[in-house]
Amino acid sequence: MTDLSAPPFSSRHIGPSESEQQRMLEAVGFESVADLVAVAVPEGIRAKDRLKLPAAIGEAEAIAELRALAGRNRVLTSMIGLGYYDTVTPAVIRRNLLENPGWYTAYTPYQPEISQGRLEALLNFQTVVSDLTGLPVSGASLLDEATAAAEAMTLARRAGKSKSEVFVVDADALPQTKAVLATRAEPLGITLVEHSLEGELPACFGVLVQYPGTSGRLRDFRAVAAAAHEAGALVVAAADLLALTLVAAPGELGADIAVGSSQRFGVPFGFGGPHAAYMSVREGLQRQLPGRLVGVSVDADGDPAYRLALQTREQHIRREKATSNICTAQVLLAVIAAMYAVYHGPEGLAGIARRVHRHATALAEGLRGAGVEVVHGEFFDTVLARVPGRAAAVVAAAAEREVNLWQVDADHVSVSCDEKTGVAEVAAVWAAFGVPGTEVDPENAPDALPASLLRESPYLTHPVFHEHRSETAMLRYLRRLQDKDIALDRSMIPLGSCTMKLNATTEMEPITWPEFAAIHPYAPAGQAAGYGELISTLEGWLAEVTGYDAVSIQPNAGSQGEFAGLLAIRAYHHANGDGERDVCLIPSSAHGTNAASAVMAGMRVVVVACDTDGNVDLADLDAKIDKHRDALAAIMVTYPSTHGVFEESITEVCAKVHDAGGQVYVDGANLNALVGLAKPGEFGADVSHLNLHKTFCIPHGGGGPGVGPVAVRAHLAAYLPGHPLHNGTPVGPVSAAPYGSAGILPISWAYVRMMGAEGLTAATEQAILSANYLARRLAPHYPVLYTGRGGLVAHECIVDLRQITKETGVTVDDVAKRLIDYGFHAPTMSFPVAGTLMIEPTESEDLGELDRFVDAMVAIRGEIAKVASGDYDKNDNPLRNAPHTAEAVSADEWPHPYARSEAAYPLPSLREAKYWVPVRRIDQAYGDRNLVCSCPPLEAYED
Amino acid sequence: MTDLSAPPFSSRHIGPSESEQQRMLEAVGFESVADLVAVAVPEGIRAKDRLKLPAAIGEAEAIAELRALAGRNRVLTSMIGLGYYDTVTPAVIRRNLLENPGWYTAYTPYQPEISQGRLEALLNFQTVVSDLTGLPVSGASLLDEATAAAEAMTLARRAGKSKSEVFVVDADALPQTKAVLATRAEPLGITLVEHSLEGELPACFGVLVQYPGTSGRLRDFRAVAAAAHEAGALVVAAADLLALTLVAAPGELGADIAVGSSQRFGVPFGFGGPHAAYMSVREGLQRQLPGRLVGVSVDADGDPAYRLALQTREQHIRREKATSNICTAQVLLAVIAAMYAVYHGPEGLAGIARRVHRHATALAEGLRGAGVEVVHGEFFDTVLARVPGRAAAVVAAAAEREVNLWQVDADHVSVSCDEKTGVAEVAAVWAAFGVPGTEVDPENAPDALPASLLRESPYLTHPVFHEHRSETAMLRYLRRLQDKDIALDRSMIPLGSCTMKLNATTEMEPITWPEFAAIHPYAPAGQAAGYGELISTLEGWLAEVTGYDAVSIQPNAGSQGEFAGLLAIRAYHHANGDGERDVCLIPSSAHGTNAASAVMAGMRVVVVACDTDGNVDLADLDAKIDKHRDALAAIMVTYPSTHGVFEESITEVCAKVHDAGGQVYVDGANLNALVGLAKPGEFGADVSHLNLHKTFCIPHGGGGPGVGPVAVRAHLAAYLPGHPLHNGTPVGPVSAAPYGSAGILPISWAYVRMMGAEGLTAATEQAILSANYLARRLAPHYPVLYTGRGGLVAHECIVDLRQITKETGVTVDDVAKRLIDYGFHAPTMSFPVAGTLMIEPTESEDLGELDRFVDAMVAIRGEIAKVASGDYDKNDNPLRNAPHTAEAVSADEWPHPYARSEAAYPLPSLREAKYWVPVRRIDQAYGDRNLVCSCPPLEAYED
Repeated sequence: MTDLSAPPFSSRHIGPSESEQQRMLEAVGFESVADLVAVAVPEGIRAKDRLKLPAAIGEAEAIAELRALAGRNRVLTSMIGLGYYDTVTPAVIRRNLLENPGWYTAYTPYQPEISQGRLEALLNFQTVVSDLTGLPVSGASLLDEATAAAEAMTLARRAGKSKSEVFVVDADALPQTKAVLATRAEPLGITLVEHSLEGELPACFGVLVQYPGTSGRLRDFRAVAAAAHEAGALVVAAADLLALTLVAAPGELGADIAVGSSQRFGVPFGFGGPHAAYMSVREGLQRQLPGRLVGVSVDADGDPAYRLALQTREQHIRREKATSNICTAQVLLAVIAAMYAVYHGPEGLAGIARRVHRHATALAEGLRGAGVEVVHGEFFDTVLARVPGRAAAVVAAAAEREVNLWQVDADHVSVSCDEKTGVAEVAAVWAAFGVPGTEVDPENAPDALPASLLRESPYLTHPVFHEHRSETAMLRYLRRLQDKDIALDRSMIPLGSCTMKLNATTEMEPITWPEFAAIHPYAPAGQAAGYGELISTLEGWLAEVTGYDAVSIQPNAGSQGEFAGLLAIRAYHHANGDGERDVCLIPSSAHGTNAASAVMAGMRVVVVACDTDGNVDLADLDAKIDKHRDALAAIMVTYPSTHGVFEESITEVCAKVHDAGGQVYVDGANLNALVGLAKPGEFGADVSHLNLHKTFCIPHGGGGPGVGPVAVRAHLAAYLPGHPLHNGTPVGPVSAAPYGSAGILPISWAYVRMMGAEGLTAATEQAILSANYLARRLAPHYPVLYTGRGGLVAHECIVDLRQITKETGVTVDDVAKRLIDYGFHAPTMSFPVAGTLMIEPTESEDLGELDRFVDAMVAIRGEIAKVASGDYDKNDNPLRNAPHTAEAVSADEWPHPYARSEAAYPLPSLREAKYWVPVRRIDQAYGDRNLVCSCPPLEAYED
Repeated sequence: MTDLSAPPFSSRHIGPSESEQQRMLEAVGFESVADLVAVAVPEGIRAKDRLKLPAAIGEAEAIAELRALAGRNRVLTSMIGLGYYDTVTPAVIRRNLLENPGWYTAYTPYQPEISQGRLEALLNFQTVVSDLTGLPVSGASLLDEATAAAEAMTLARRAGKSKSEVFVVDADALPQTKAVLATRAEPLGITLVEHSLEGELPACFGVLVQYPGTSGRLRDFRAVAAAAHEAGALVVAAADLLALTLVAAPGELGADIAVGSSQRFGVPFGFGGPHAAYMSVREGLQRQLPGRLVGVSVDADGDPAYRLALQTREQHIRREKATSNICTAQVLLAVIAAMYAVYHGPEGLAGIARRVHRHATALAEGLRGAGVEVVHGEFFDTVLARVPGRAAAVVAAAAEREVNLWQVDADHVSVSCDEKTGVAEVAAVWAAFGVPGTEVDPENAPDALPASLLRESPYLTHPVFHEHRSETAMLRYLRRLQDKDIALDRSMIPLGSCTMKLNATTEMEPITWPEFAAIHPYAPAGQAAGYGELISTLEGWLAEVTGYDAVSIQPNAGSQGEFAGLLAIRAYHHANGDGERDVCLIPSSAHGTNAASAVMAGMRVVVVACDTDGNVDLADLDAKIDKHRDALAAIMVTYPSTHGVFEESITEVCAKVHDAGGQVYVDGANLNALVGLAKPGEFGADVSHLNLHKTFCIPHGGGGPGVGPVAVRAHLAAYLPGHPLHNGTPVGPVSAAPYGSAGILPISWAYVRMMGAEGLTAATEQAILSANYLARRLAPHYPVLYTGRGGLVAHECIVDLRQITKETGVTVDDVAKRLIDYGFHAPTMSFPVAGTLMIEPTESEDLGELDRFVDAMVAIRGEIAKVASGDYDKNDNPLRNAPHTAEAVSADEWPHPYARSEAAYPLPSLREAKYWVPVRRIDQAYGDRNLVCSCPPLEAYED
């Protein structure tokens, strides 16, 4: 009898083979994985049944099913606008960036030396935003335009001089922006006032102007800005980057802050996301910027080098003092937008904008000529037509011509032109309005940009926007940047809590199919039936995996999932008349985002102590519950803990909080240790967020996109995030798009579909085994900080450098940078405990790679020993001087007391394959003292 | 008025911008491109009209048109067999290899130091073939199974002891193999005898056995082999690699030579190609192998390094002494097949083979059980069913179930199972045979492999076939190999005559769409309507561009196009009763392939001298014509000449040959200097082949695929290559598949469609300008060897190192290897003139890259000067020791008299981006003395 089943996908996803697994079990001291799990995972939380998921299918079958789902989406020409515009992703960028694991599997650039490629790309992004908005400091991207606007609102509140609690929103702002602002304002006690921005402004701490407006209207808001400033308020402009190539920059009109989306710079619709939002600010506000900021500094040789600037400024996610819970960005999408600008250059972008504008003016002229009223005379790309009583009919007629328009109300239709609009599309729109055969020469249609707003200031003058115009040059630029970085396509990225597992090609391929990529988020549901089914199926699977009753995939980052979960708890208490419950207990070991999200949800954070083993201190928990019994809203715990341990007490913790009337929030960051083995929704939690970019294979993209669904038990289901385009819901949206970053959900769908219950469970088991294998192999060399039952860890382990540092002066930083010389990305540094390294191997690394990592760590321990023994100079040794560039080790003069070969090739295997870091250790302080956050002039690079 | 047209694709394809072009013109001394062309291109050959091609369209539009064409192909399950079997390309290989410019834009590995990645991959391919066929030496791939069989036939003839002129072909051989053998046998005077291989063999010099046979039959051919050997004949087995994982190897059964296709190792159908064929031989025949052979040698440090072995053996393309005209391979496809084997390993491959076999046996069992006669009891994957009078009906019924079967004749249907076959497909086949509801458990179906043929010998025991089983490991292996090589995604590859231009992403994307990739070459025409239209359109465009009347895209390499063109001439003369015309004049400057092809076409080669300027010596031409007037068949000339010059005399040459009754063959290798400016079919030629992989953007793939269409004037149109599956044609096929490498034709289609007449012409003009710019910039430093009118070159230039070598000892090799240290692939070395470098920049390189190359060449000239002046030691200098690895320049000891920085960073710009070569200069002779052509044991790498 021959086994007719092909090897399952899980055998490709999971790194170690069966024989490797056996060797790892032997090293850890168990006979079988089942034995290991029985000891490692507390019996009390173990799931009773295997996951109820469809049987796993192969890669080809999964692609076939996804093609069938894709086939149920219909790609029409979408001229809907509302913040989303069709765009051409240059093929060279799609293939070599969006479809290239060298870019999409990279991690957040916290280790700047191995991230120079994407940091340069992000600096290009910041330069694009700064130049176009006329505001000197731009961040490295935010989640979407609506949440960026919300961040701008809170920035205005804390940075402005006004004592008002009112924030004024342009009545012509995007509907999703208004809705997200409302969701975010209410728990913080901010009063939102919608206003036409004509006539006098109410007292306020800030004003948001949409520029151009949602209706297309293009207004000069200088007077509004002046009035706002007069009253001590800050001015936020939500601006369209493409329009800014032709009209005056927000900074020139008086805006203090600009926000918006860079989607139309080459990033597909994706049914709403992911896209990179931007924020830029005037001088003086840079230390208030939420999210990440890339800056220029110098390395140990004094050469320019990029890194995340002002990281100490990250008080915005500093626990209860937080001002924002943003802790990720949309790097991959920001990089695409930046490269779109690099490829087109300023003339190219302006040319696209002029064509868009010209088609819009021709469209308007044609309508007017045929007697259709065009509401606004001054606009960029969007024409608002008044067709009393006929709006629905016009939209329907357009759909028959394969064009989506937007029905504003019964009497108005809006039409947005974009990069893809041509005379055929304009003709179809005319026909839909009932004026077929209209002829207007777009090249000679009258201009509709107000004279006072014509842009005169230059932009994108830096050479990078002028040197890569041929496809060959662009291809090489992308390759050159990619080659500077370490991503998963080179070596293991053993980051604790970040779960850098395989992002399989089969999971990734569908996201660039037009049927998934080219759907506008507000396309009629009938055109997105495939998405509808994919989303509801995935939500169902995630509910099954977590043991919850309902899931919303709307949050487009873990932090937003947390916020949504806490909003659900808040709304639940309010609905029960328990509005006074506002205390959120958070263990001292928690990730800072937890507290930040609680603050954003209007809660007071009360910290619960941890014991010396790193577990929640039950006595302190009791005390805090007693103290806040009537005000207790929730507890937020991470499970397994941020220390990488399965705490035995978790069910007890849940029970205590429930007994006091509180809700239990389990942070899903470490779900990769639970899938198939235990379900938070079953062992006592009421709500969790998941990180699809950790456990469910969405790649990290160099620092985003993330997806952070929120999962709740039945009693909280009604309080999941809503959306203005859907029917009224008790809780508003937390993201701009109704389904968040829908465009990348096929990745997680494919993962679950191809793994099935057995595969997912096997992955969890292997992740636990691999972490314990590493802990066991490293323990003779480095103390392993926390362990649970049987001396076991969960899916990650913490090695403690503190004693070593004390004895030798060799720091966590030195080890991290020295790992670069060995070809590795460092583990997580000093989280959750300063002076330690947290290592999570994931199930995807095979034994060869795990051993290679152990070899490196052991060799480094030997180097540390040489420092201790005096064989290495305390201040001039391979650790302190790491990382070593090729330039350094081949310099004519070698000033160090250790050999070049010790610097470059400390292990023989490095002679076979060596990653050469492009810069030496970067001086963080220098960069913060000398803040440069856009592309430096070329002279900076001269020796 | 605003220009509404977006920048054309040509502005991305052509490297220099308008302003750069202007600067280049100034350097060359012309006001405009038109002025330059007017001087450079002889008036006499200039085309009168602009090309009649459809107006250029943009990238998005081209993709839309290609999607429409693709939509007219219908993807059914093809169980047709006949040498083509469906297969699963692992997604990780598709994305990171087949869709990765790092792999597909690489050139042939003639510079082995910068080709170690693909050389290792090819060595894996050779190991797979050697191991599976049981023959120790395998080449690095051939064009297709049929031409490989033809090469085996001629190898047998020259290597065997028999004086017979008969070659025996298995009656059960593939129809396309029989047909190509016939095409190739006839001009060489070989008599082909088809034979059942039962009973006595006729006297012969060789026998070809199909193993398993086309009918599926699996025979033990030991007795046939013994008999053949007895008679002094060699035995060629055309074997299926997948079957060989389960059955005895050809070498074990007595074959001297094995050939076949590696298509079913992960390479898509592509409507017939490209796929990599293989050939392996027993010990003693390795020096007779046609095509390329990768071997292991050592570098200057004594470390193992790969390179093409036995290059001196390339007498097979040595002009009139040639034994084969093969001068390319199918590297990209061979690499895919090798990686498929690496990813699956021996157990995985055997598992696939067992599943295929099991489904075939279940299919047969079901048919027999239902009373359908199964002709052969012993088979691997193909079941031949006898259904008297019903064959057409069964095939039609299968098609209704979306399955293609093969109608052998009115009474027989054959069904081939493959990697994708499952119970559903088998059930559909049963239903088509009229026995629906048949149930046979495939896991328990009786075996159909003859006991005497069960494989016992091991294969793929090398670690490389065991270490890359997870997707993560595979991804990293591909990245690691890719990083060793220079391809177009890193820097200019200025190879003369090879035209390494942009392979645009938009051109490349469609080839992996299932609607193009998944069509069997023998699928009914109705299922390939999109291909049909694409092919006929492209043939029409190529005819227009070249000025010919008819084009065949069947030849799957330039050499095959040449052969086809000469066959057309031969057939034409024969048809005119001029059978005695068999002399082919070839200038001494010609590429060796020309003469080789002429010999293969049964012609006698007569060499025409060139004058000191490198042009055809008209006096000698007259003399040779006079001497061979009655026997004159043709002249073969390259235009512009292989010296990179527009010879003024070309029309005269054509006229002289025509006057003598000969035909004119213009080699299209240098067509990139003519497109839009001149047409060979108009200025006097009768036939040309084109190289779509040069002029029309098909990437070189690291050494193949190529496509070499043949274009002819009307009087030769009837003699273009035919195919056994089409209606009878006077000339047989030159390639296995009717449309050759159809799967990559969308690339050239897209190029012409997006460039249009203006774009193509502008590309030619820029190519000429760029070559002249380089010539002008380099001339003060290196003598430029040949020029035409106005001191101008055509699209390439030759710089002469001979005097420098004489004076300083610095050779062409030294300069080529030193260019690696500067990050460049060397120009063509010592062709067409020994001691020179031929440089072709193409139109795709922008001015920045051209200047970077000039900077490198000038800096190298400075280094040469230091050798001359004695500042550098004659034997120990950066030129002689180039290339320098990172390991060398960072070694603890630096034994050289020049500085490390001079070795590593001779130009400051290299400090920004440096390519590190993985090995030092390779010792060619050592490797040929110690021939190792499969993966060496790991100990070889130990220091």
